[in-house]
Amino acid sequence: MTDISIVYPPNQVSLREVGLRDGLQMVKKYPSTQGKLNWISQEYNAGIRHFEIGTFLPKERYPMFADMDDLITKISNLENAFSTGLSPNKHGSLDGLKSGVSEIHCVVSASEAHNLANLNRSQAATLQEIKEICSLRDQQKIPTHIGVGIAMSFGCSISGHVNPSAVLSLAEYCYSLGADLVSIADTVGYAAPRQVEFLSREMYKLADNKPFGVHLHDTRGMGIANATAALGQGVRLLDASIGGLGGCPAAPNATGNIVMEDLVFLCDNSGFNTGVNLEKLIQVRKILKQEMPDEPLFGALAKAGLPKLN
Amino acid sequence: MTDISIVYPPNQVSLREVGLRDGLQMVKKYPSTQGKLNWISQEYNAGIRHFEIGTFLPKERYPMFADMDDLITKISNLENAFSTGLSPNKHGSLDGLKSGVSEIHCVVSASEAHNLANLNRSQAATLQEIKEICSLRDQQKIPTHIGVGIAMSFGCSISGHVNPSAVLSLAEYCYSLGADLVSIADTVGYAAPRQVEFLSREMYKLADNKPFGVHLHDTRGMGIANATAALGQGVRLLDASIGGLGGCPAAPNATGNIVMEDLVFLCDNSGFNTGVNLEKLIQVRKILKQEMPDEPLFGALAKAGLPKLN
Repeated sequence: MTDISIVYPPNQVSLREVGLRDGLQMVKKYPSTQGKLNWISQEYNAGIRHFEIGTFLPKERYPMFADMDDLITKISNLENAFSTGLSPNKHGSLDGLKSGVSEIHCVVSASEAHNLANLNRSQAATLQEIKEICSLRDQQKIPTHIGVGIAMSFGCSISGHVNPSAVLSLAEYCYSLGADLVSIADTVGYAAPRQVEFLSREMYKLADNKPFGVHLHDTRGMGIANATAALGQGVRLLDASIGGLGGCPAAPNATGNIVMEDLVFLCDNSGFNTGVNLEKLIQVRKILKQEMPDEPLFGALAKAGLPKLN
Repeated sequence: MTDISIVYPPNQVSLREVGLRDGLQMVKKYPSTQGKLNWISQEYNAGIRHFEIGTFLPKERYPMFADMDDLITKISNLENAFSTGLSPNKHGSLDGLKSGVSEIHCVVSASEAHNLANLNRSQAATLQEIKEICSLRDQQKIPTHIGVGIAMSFGCSISGHVNPSAVLSLAEYCYSLGADLVSIADTVGYAAPRQVEFLSREMYKLADNKPFGVHLHDTRGMGIANATAALGQGVRLLDASIGGLGGCPAAPNATGNIVMEDLVFLCDNSGFNTGVNLEKLIQVRKILKQEMPDEPLFGALAKAGLPKLN
């Protein structure tokens, strides 16, 4: 296993493209495998190194993720690139352990109501599975990294207010189970910067030099402001997608994930050199437009172009 | 003259609707006077108290602003509401002094190149005019407030980088001339939060309890993040427009002013109670859609709705 500090260097910002997973959950037409491979190639060439490429689910019922193996192979052949696959349950995690993916991303919800609705079992049962999968991982010759995402960390569309201390307790417990990484997710885009600032600061203390991430949606227009707040509190892993592809299941017509292009502009102008070529990154939108012509793409920078500075 | 601390109370956030001015500079079809009056009424009923209602320009050549007198009268009849009119030159300011508007907003650019391109004269000549108009204002029985906006404060689409110290010197000089208020404007949407944070902090020191404002555009997706940065450094006056109406002349198809609805959500979730009813505010978009059917309206909150919190 590559040391986690090489996957997520503590002193630089890692940006993970999640459009190939989060983005495909609500689209009308799925991109072809070749389209996905081109997407990965071009975004890698622009400078992105982390890709969440799908969810480990039965291929028959979830055709949009049936080609995950091809994407994992592709990414493993790119220097210093890393693949993440989402796992909704133990079965998926077992598939993940066999897949060669760099990281399995497990999920637990900050609210019991959403955990039941999303995963059809309790938080306790979900955590027990995460414990088991971490044990199995430890027996691998080349162990896979395990990340845990805490959904609804900033409020829940089913049960409303979420207590930040419940999120932090969950995060601490996941690290104790053997997770290499914990991410807090604003699954339905409820957060405002002050909340993100608070929870990121507490996560920074709690993680104690272990990597942690923040997964944001722009559902209520706060995405880039929330990313700014997270960066200011030591967050060094942020998820985003080209064109903001990806929706919020509780708000079908709303904006989706935070926009990768705009996020790169933010990072580069906040003292974090991403090394990403923004002109090339913006070109990746063309692939999405070709492969998913019905999907709206968001993002301001692609419309306006870069500032003309001398 | 109403004391400036009543117009802009130092301990609360003032949000100024600028769509009736900045928003109308690039639209294809102008709203009717009745449409504008409805817009003001409904936005006032939602809780907004500051309106920039046009530019003092020759009515024959600028029909979109020909009804400013009606709007000024309307606003003067609303309790605790304030009108601002932009003035591009001395002639406009003289019209403004006679108009009964609460505040005349003069403009100078942070870059000489943009000042020449925008106002057809030098920064020095523009400042001389502002000095003269402040003197004339002082002779009024009921003096009008004079604000000065410093265009291109965060970078210029003609001459590129703008030195922050040049902006601060201009601001200081404008206060010394008698301006009640100075605003720094990201006219072409070049700013990122770190820049806004720095310049807002310096403006806070320089203004020394006099009001100052920040005028932001969302051209590169940083609008709400920049507003967050400004609020964090003591800025208590922000301009915005319903639906983000208003463009950036240097980027014709780009997003416009920061979106009032999203800005209110930000403020309310950042410890600043705006007192604005967001549901009512979102309804104002309908007027804009009716009056200007070809104009795209931006903003995430109107699409997603408010979070369901208990």
